[in-house]
Amino acid sequence: MANDRIRLESLKDKIMTAEQAAFLIKDGMVVGSSGFTKAGDSKAVLPAFAERAKKEQIKITLMTGASLGHDTDGKLAEAGALAKRMPFQVDRVLRNKINAGEVLFIDQHLSESAELLHNKNLPSVDIAVIEVAYIDRDGSIVPTTSVGNSVTFAALAKQVILEINMAVKEDMYGIHDIYQAEDYPHRNVIPIVAPWNKIGRKTIPLDPSKVVGVVFTDMLDSPADIAPADPKTTAIAQHILAFFENEVLLGHLTDRLLPIQAGIGKVANAVLMGFKDSNFYDLTMFSEVLQDSTFDLIDAGKLSFASASSVTVSADCYQRVFGNLQKYRDKFVLRPQNISNTPGLIRRLGIIAINTAIEFDIYGNVNSTHISGTKIMNGIGGSGDFARNAYLSVFVAQAASKGNAISHVLPMVSHVDHTEHDVDILVTDIGLADLRGLAPRERAQKIIDNCVHPDYKEQLQSYFDRARERGGHTPHLLEEAFSWHLRLAKTGSMKE
Amino acid sequence: MANDRIRLESLKDKIMTAEQAAFLIKDGMVVGSSGFTKAGDSKAVLPAFAERAKKEQIKITLMTGASLGHDTDGKLAEAGALAKRMPFQVDRVLRNKINAGEVLFIDQHLSESAELLHNKNLPSVDIAVIEVAYIDRDGSIVPTTSVGNSVTFAALAKQVILEINMAVKEDMYGIHDIYQAEDYPHRNVIPIVAPWNKIGRKTIPLDPSKVVGVVFTDMLDSPADIAPADPKTTAIAQHILAFFENEVLLGHLTDRLLPIQAGIGKVANAVLMGFKDSNFYDLTMFSEVLQDSTFDLIDAGKLSFASASSVTVSADCYQRVFGNLQKYRDKFVLRPQNISNTPGLIRRLGIIAINTAIEFDIYGNVNSTHISGTKIMNGIGGSGDFARNAYLSVFVAQAASKGNAISHVLPMVSHVDHTEHDVDILVTDIGLADLRGLAPRERAQKIIDNCVHPDYKEQLQSYFDRARERGGHTPHLLEEAFSWHLRLAKTGSMKE
Repeated sequence: MANDRIRLESLKDKIMTAEQAAFLIKDGMVVGSSGFTKAGDSKAVLPAFAERAKKEQIKITLMTGASLGHDTDGKLAEAGALAKRMPFQVDRVLRNKINAGEVLFIDQHLSESAELLHNKNLPSVDIAVIEVAYIDRDGSIVPTTSVGNSVTFAALAKQVILEINMAVKEDMYGIHDIYQAEDYPHRNVIPIVAPWNKIGRKTIPLDPSKVVGVVFTDMLDSPADIAPADPKTTAIAQHILAFFENEVLLGHLTDRLLPIQAGIGKVANAVLMGFKDSNFYDLTMFSEVLQDSTFDLIDAGKLSFASASSVTVSADCYQRVFGNLQKYRDKFVLRPQNISNTPGLIRRLGIIAINTAIEFDIYGNVNSTHISGTKIMNGIGGSGDFARNAYLSVFVAQAASKGNAISHVLPMVSHVDHTEHDVDILVTDIGLADLRGLAPRERAQKIIDNCVHPDYKEQLQSYFDRARERGGHTPHLLEEAFSWHLRLAKTGSMKE
Repeated sequence: MANDRIRLESLKDKIMTAEQAAFLIKDGMVVGSSGFTKAGDSKAVLPAFAERAKKEQIKITLMTGASLGHDTDGKLAEAGALAKRMPFQVDRVLRNKINAGEVLFIDQHLSESAELLHNKNLPSVDIAVIEVAYIDRDGSIVPTTSVGNSVTFAALAKQVILEINMAVKEDMYGIHDIYQAEDYPHRNVIPIVAPWNKIGRKTIPLDPSKVVGVVFTDMLDSPADIAPADPKTTAIAQHILAFFENEVLLGHLTDRLLPIQAGIGKVANAVLMGFKDSNFYDLTMFSEVLQDSTFDLIDAGKLSFASASSVTVSADCYQRVFGNLQKYRDKFVLRPQNISNTPGLIRRLGIIAINTAIEFDIYGNVNSTHISGTKIMNGIGGSGDFARNAYLSVFVAQAASKGNAISHVLPMVSHVDHTEHDVDILVTDIGLADLRGLAPRERAQKIIDNCVHPDYKEQLQSYFDRARERGGHTPHLLEEAFSWHLRLAKTGSMKE
């Protein structure tokens, strides 16, 4: 069995346990690891390193594709093994350590980490840990359920540890499109003009002399937990679908729309599921992560092709797709995240981007990352890559939460991830604000009219009216701009 | 003479005065006009329309490339002729009207206006006013000192007025590279892989049946006013040049650097002039606007090629370049602004972007547009297009101004145009902060150590220290975040 999975004879000498491999990671090293939204992450070596760090004072800088599964980030953080982490995380324990200042976190546009490494704008990677389906005869590797930044880590790391996951079938071969742009100043065109274009190799090139360890694992990715639709997510999805239907009526779009990017979570899922019973057809996706809804739409005959950097699905959906890959292999492709998220392709293909906001303000600025301006939740992820360059940039949020003690539509966001320049459509369960072609004062009135929860409408209108009296292109009362956040901290509610 | 400039016979019937042409612009119309940073703007029809608007209640929506020359924006605003203006302006009178809420302004990434029009995300253009050197035999037009959004206006406007500028020589033919991307979903690759690549036509295609008026003018562009270098700009330029020299020493860049984008103004000018006596050579530019310094560097044998959307130079430099175009025509090219500023090309070419900030904060967020969060100065221009996608994104500001009553390095910017994700290097006359690979708390200390004016150092350190005690990935004291701006408004100084 192992023989099948290590097809380059010389690497069979490198087989070791995860614990042995964890000792190859030294204190102070920069580690680049596979894994993107739980998919294709290190399931043995990083957890073994976390165990080791419980007993020793060792800290690393850890770069990944995006978030890891199996609480790995939490275990590493708990053990004090992380000095610095980038470019994304979603773990509760790690988040608390970051907010306490115990772990340094760099929140990066997901398309940029590989660029920064190639450009030497980040420290070089000492050792990479990459999950693979198998090692090919030329030493190149077949990744699993994500590509993430693994192509860059394999190219640039001084040493590489490979985790061969026996729970993953070898027929993963061929679902990846491995392409790496040339170095500056000799970079060429990335020749993708449609989501289904494959332009690269099927395996990740790797110099076998860099491989210092091969570890066997046998464990599937942590499954996605998808919260079922609720009345709010359903309302948001309905507003968006009605908007798309109207754009078709106006002749702005066809029934095939344009390639869709959808962030993670139940709203995105609800929107995608809404297409199932719609008149839209021959839809495509050009996104970062494919969730259950993607495969449901493929099965329903609505979605023709999906491009992304990872597949993060429920246990049932995993079996449906990867237990019968022959049925799906021409329907999707996984790319490096500096290709799936690259600004030039997003503009070239004309993406419809749907992402989630923590809060937005009356001028259309969006906070995707910080609670009350200071505490990070997850990270900006790919939302900036897509929102800036999309044909249409949609952000969604519930209008209010926690028994309406919190309004997610505010005078001023406490942290800006996406400026008003990058936001076309805002949607809450209350309604949709189409901000295209509107100046700031028009945006404000439209957002107050359409998106804010009724409990906060008067209060928000009052802010805007009083700010407008004082003047400015973007009227604000700086002394009051964060009063809603401050009131929440003091009284437990944003209500006056 | 007129015969030479209107080479399509049928259009000779359309010759009229500027006053007559101004009557073709109706109340409520969307007008698309040539003009980018004073260059190639309408010198007769828009001013005539402003005159007409003094006597009549007529208002238009005016889109341009960027800013206009000859106080045209001021005259239009003064006459009450502007309902809405986009995507950029620099006029004092217009700015005041915008801040008073009398003119609605949409501040757009300069690469996006043409995209938004093509995608029908903005109202369609009723009439275009385009300055040209001449009309070719096929009805296509040769623009003058800028391309801006004229290709899009010519393609999409229902009617077109042409201003033939007799002060411009016909040998402008050939300095433009006119390329328009296909409509979605059939858009192809933009095949530029080096600043000097020319991929399009030499003239702007135009359906002659849309031409409703041809007006003759005879006036050069408003000349650029370039303030001479002062000790602060010189200090900023020296910090940047020393940084580049060090990057070469580290092997990150060669002596040829990578293509440079420089915003308008005296800092950019000082940086570029600094290259004159440096060891750098075979430099290139991929920018929006070419200023005097570009041609000085060409003359000095330091700069091999420059790509942009306009040439905005002093009267002397204008004569030097356009009086002897044969000498320079292989050294620069003018492109539509949705090509000069397109994100995909900026990332593909690996641009070094240098732009000016009004203020920045301890985490590296930049405000390029708003005074105290409310009053707009000019607009975001192309700074976002370049900063987001650049190989290196540099922002510059003076550390303090107005007798040091204002610090330009602050706890929190009052308006965010560029988030910390998009900012690599911050420079003031005090020093340079290299933020690459730093988490927010590290960024803050580096900025306090290197960039803030000594008068504010203690005050800023105190804010950061107290915020850090309260915790968070991005520590802030929301109740105090804008206290510096509020103190300035109250006491005339940001000092405690």
